[in-house]
Amino acid sequence: MSGRVTVAGLGPGADSMVTPEVSAALAEATDVIGYIPYVARIAPRPGLTLHASDNRVELDRAAHALELAQAGRRVVVVSSGDPGVFAMASALFEAVEADPCHEALDIRILPGITAMLAAAARAGAPLGHDFCAINLSDNLKPFALIERRLRHAARGDFAMAFYNPRSASRPHQFARVLEILREECRSDPLITFARAVSTPDERLITVTLSEARPEMADMRTVVLLGNSATRRVGRWIYTPRRAEGAT
Amino acid sequence: MSGRVTVAGLGPGADSMVTPEVSAALAEATDVIGYIPYVARIAPRPGLTLHASDNRVELDRAAHALELAQAGRRVVVVSSGDPGVFAMASALFEAVEADPCHEALDIRILPGITAMLAAAARAGAPLGHDFCAINLSDNLKPFALIERRLRHAARGDFAMAFYNPRSASRPHQFARVLEILREECRSDPLITFARAVSTPDERLITVTLSEARPEMADMRTVVLLGNSATRRVGRWIYTPRRAEGAT
Repeated sequence: MSGRVTVAGLGPGADSMVTPEVSAALAEATDVIGYIPYVARIAPRPGLTLHASDNRVELDRAAHALELAQAGRRVVVVSSGDPGVFAMASALFEAVEADPCHEALDIRILPGITAMLAAAARAGAPLGHDFCAINLSDNLKPFALIERRLRHAARGDFAMAFYNPRSASRPHQFARVLEILREECRSDPLITFARAVSTPDERLITVTLSEARPEMADMRTVVLLGNSATRRVGRWIYTPRRAEGAT
Repeated sequence: MSGRVTVAGLGPGADSMVTPEVSAALAEATDVIGYIPYVARIAPRPGLTLHASDNRVELDRAAHALELAQAGRRVVVVSSGDPGVFAMASALFEAVEADPCHEALDIRILPGITAMLAAAARAGAPLGHDFCAINLSDNLKPFALIERRLRHAARGDFAMAFYNPRSASRPHQFARVLEILREECRSDPLITFARAVSTPDERLITVTLSEARPEMADMRTVVLLGNSATRRVGRWIYTPRRAEGAT
């Protein structure tokens, strides 16, 4: 049997948000590879080898998946959320680029429910108009680029979703992000801190940007910033479809 | 039994991308409301009333759903993709805002696989770095705002996903969008036209921005523009995780 690598999105946490095509890929896999907490979501069974690895070894993990597939295994690389949004899909193609003998392999990317859209659904519809998704980790990009993107996104009055807002290794940076946003946003938009959506630890807090404090975010939080029209209706947060100046 | 409104994302087209929680909501619904082609995806059964309506009546549809729920029905409003991304969730909250007696209703938003992420997965990982999602329809916003957002997104070197790039009522506007992008992008980024992803009509074409022609898009197309680092590896398109200047 010929090998294959499938990079599959497990969604934000609840099994009820895992698509049937991802479940089917897992059911026929011989090997599942991924970051420890994601692999922990996969039920062991005879014939399935689970390979759990630590964070920040994405490229090693991708190369391992490609090697197993070259040996004829049916490998599923698991990501949380969607594999194409700040997750394992890009790392896999980086590994293919580094070793072009893998280009002929059977590779499939299966989308999943990404954290910002799960969080937005819980809050209401804060991303209901044009929006940006920005990874706030400076692990693989300079903070100057993050700052440039924040400023342009604010000047364009985009709603925004922030991944990886805060970690132990960079506790002060998210405070700087909030400062930049306050400098640029002429309104005082609503900001939602959505933690561990769809898990037992789920918690959502919405405040205004001026009220936001860095401690409201941690590594399990996705942050949603509204645009100038985002507002509350009852217990919900939403961004209307109609923008000022529409005919 | 008390009524409820669930706004559910059906994903881009394939049933294998409908989440179990959406399938469960549909299985217990008394009424399904939505745009004709989306309601056509729901299998009729005894006890289920299907309410299909035309495009551009989103607010009427939302008000209808709320009234049925007030009468004790279990209503599912179906959207393609994700209901929070240029779809029915915002319209529902607009209708709640217009008639606050609905604020106490049981309302749930269930996320789905949105078109840009399904398309990105088919192409590889073109949205693997920071990106913007922009609705190119000027039905509810002035073109000046679209232009402003395009220019800021390009100056921030964001990858971009464009929804509703082209319709019969505004055939020339997408040509103007491509012109603006060519003015702003210092590189000549890759652009992918992804039509009807996950359906039998699926078709993907990738060219450079300078080669792109307006006719490559229609109403069933989502367009993905890479950032300055987006590139090909084998038959795939991807954006690396590492940005220039990273330490």
